[in-house]
Amino acid sequence: MTIAIIGLGLIGGSIGLKAKSLGFNVVGYDQNEQHAHQALEYGLVHSVLSLDEILEQADIIGLCVPIDGIQSLLPKVLDRMKSTQTVFDVGSTKQNICNLVSGHPKRSRFVAAHPLAGTEFSGPSAAFLNLFEGKKNLICEERLCDHDALKKVTDLFADMGMQNLFMPAVDHDRHMAYVSHLSHVTSFTLGLTVLDIEKDENQIFNLASTGLASTVRLAKSSPITWGSIFTDNSKNLSEALEKYIDYISDFKKAIDSKDLEKMKDMMQRANEMRRVLNGMELKALKF
Amino acid sequence: MTIAIIGLGLIGGSIGLKAKSLGFNVVGYDQNEQHAHQALEYGLVHSVLSLDEILEQADIIGLCVPIDGIQSLLPKVLDRMKSTQTVFDVGSTKQNICNLVSGHPKRSRFVAAHPLAGTEFSGPSAAFLNLFEGKKNLICEERLCDHDALKKVTDLFADMGMQNLFMPAVDHDRHMAYVSHLSHVTSFTLGLTVLDIEKDENQIFNLASTGLASTVRLAKSSPITWGSIFTDNSKNLSEALEKYIDYISDFKKAIDSKDLEKMKDMMQRANEMRRVLNGMELKALKF
Repeated sequence: MTIAIIGLGLIGGSIGLKAKSLGFNVVGYDQNEQHAHQALEYGLVHSVLSLDEILEQADIIGLCVPIDGIQSLLPKVLDRMKSTQTVFDVGSTKQNICNLVSGHPKRSRFVAAHPLAGTEFSGPSAAFLNLFEGKKNLICEERLCDHDALKKVTDLFADMGMQNLFMPAVDHDRHMAYVSHLSHVTSFTLGLTVLDIEKDENQIFNLASTGLASTVRLAKSSPITWGSIFTDNSKNLSEALEKYIDYISDFKKAIDSKDLEKMKDMMQRANEMRRVLNGMELKALKF
Repeated sequence: MTIAIIGLGLIGGSIGLKAKSLGFNVVGYDQNEQHAHQALEYGLVHSVLSLDEILEQADIIGLCVPIDGIQSLLPKVLDRMKSTQTVFDVGSTKQNICNLVSGHPKRSRFVAAHPLAGTEFSGPSAAFLNLFEGKKNLICEERLCDHDALKKVTDLFADMGMQNLFMPAVDHDRHMAYVSHLSHVTSFTLGLTVLDIEKDENQIFNLASTGLASTVRLAKSSPITWGSIFTDNSKNLSEALEKYIDYISDFKKAIDSKDLEKMKDMMQRANEMRRVLNGMELKALKF
């Protein structure tokens, strides 16, 4: 079985590497020629083909490019696909992508997926074999898929070590704004702010502890990937940001007026995250 | 040599444990009787004494309580200390503490310290032997210390595996607002916001990746410790927060208007943190 990966970065490259180890014939394409070359060099794919050759040869096609790229490619790929071929995407938003092809005659060959895995690094050099191990893969609008197409894609992700979960696209995007996209914006903003106000970069080297490193880690993420996610999920994310800005403005007021009781009340409520994060850790152990 | 630890939480308990391993006689006090009991039970100190007994017996006294506790205890301890005894604190702010005792006749027996070490946990059960290994310890106003007092304290921290650095108190508090206190406020606020808007806590369990866990980790920190730090450093922290709120409001505007170029520009600037954090990692490796 031949799987084609379009977009050979962190996610696409890691799928390629894992699919190779699972015995697939893995072919790839990246419009960035240097990335395509690196993907071959690092052994992420068996070969690099043109888009025409991919549409000719692949049983499964994975779209592993930023959201705007998925939105541009998916209708074209569906137009030209045979009814025996299957396409999936790995975008971090799902509603607009699903809506875009809802009336397409070959809609049933498309599986909308979002493997919840990633790091703050990007490009082919960031790919690694076990990125997906023990993680969750979200599938939206599974009822619109042909049985065989859905099975091929869920089997692939399951074989990659993931648990497949099913969720309506509208819920997916809202939850993702809350538990992932918001924390990326706050982390980028923290990075921006610290670099702006701390004129002496040596003091960041000298004084920052693991606390800053952990909080600002996501500020290293790819602007291309995340710009496209923020744009596509702007409504949900904006609502989350509005609430966040309200809270941090309240926090600032409490700090300005040295209102210790108010601060403690806010921090105690935030401490509830202990319980929630411990739950996450327990689930991760049990998985 | 007898070292007395007042406040047997994460920091005080870890100093006790390490000082025991270095051959000190370690005595302790905590106004929370349960913490005092636990500190004995976990072997963080050799014995628990009253404050009177500590002032009688200790060569070095470490104040390891929240900032407001240090401000209340330090003048009283100095009042009653013999001129052969030394006291240090471990507070995360230094300017007000130093100002408070600047005119004290025994000022020279006080060493203002801030070991840059900690975790998001608190209390005696959070203490561990190597918390300080390879970390930095900041000392302020060292010129106001008697030579023997300064040497005793810097030797202690060096023996605990730390590098002592010297810095004016006013600079210390400003830098700390930027590289530590700000990221605690943003993390507490993120915790508050996610718990508020994500009504379905199971979705936090299910969907949150390591990104959220890392960004929100500091939201688990102690409200007592941090309320006291935020209050004491309110002016510096408020300036940092003002800048942060400006940036995140700008970011929200760019998201609302789907201004991809503006978003990318902000993220690319934040990406500079890669270089800075890599510098930190290199320094940590070399230390």
